[in-house]
Amino acid sequence: MKYDAEVKISLKKGMLNPEAATIERALALLEYQVEDTKTIDIIKFSLEGENDETVHKEVDEMCQRLLCNPVIHNYEIKITSKNSIK
Amino acid sequence: MKYDAEVKISLKKGMLNPEAATIERALALLEYQVEDTKTIDIIKFSLEGENDETVHKEVDEMCQRLLCNPVIHNYEIKITSKNSIK
Repeated sequence: MKYDAEVKISLKKGMLNPEAATIERALALLEYQVEDTKTIDIIKFSLEGENDETVHKEVDEMCQRLLCNPVIHNYEIKITSKNSIK
Repeated sequence: MKYDAEVKISLKKGMLNPEAATIERALALLEYQVEDTKTIDIIKFSLEGENDETVHKEVDEMCQRLLCNPVIHNYEIKITSKNSIK
């Protein structure tokens, strides 16, 4: 069965986010005043798996090993099954 | 009134995404087979504004001028008002 996975990666609270700081400063130069700027990365892909649970576990493993740095990142995993059965 | 803005930036269809390609290759090296990898960036911030419409227009302007490259990016803007009235 095919599944779609979505991993949402954000920095943990208290972590400095230079990207967000740069965006805020650049917007200020253009005279837009914004605050509390945050950036979030989403990675989407599809993969084969037996059921929701095993796929979730596999994607969690990918996060731990490659996609995220658990020391500084929070991540959320969303698994949805594609309707087509292969 | 305070508003929360969320800008979701993705590459247009057909654009090469080297970040996604690298993720897919790196996952393959770890023996995870995934496909259709996509990456999406979200920028969140809060700002002052009169009403939903003017805030949406202002954020759209920010996207055009700084946050996105309209030639290669699609973007979606979501505006939500904070309950606290200043």
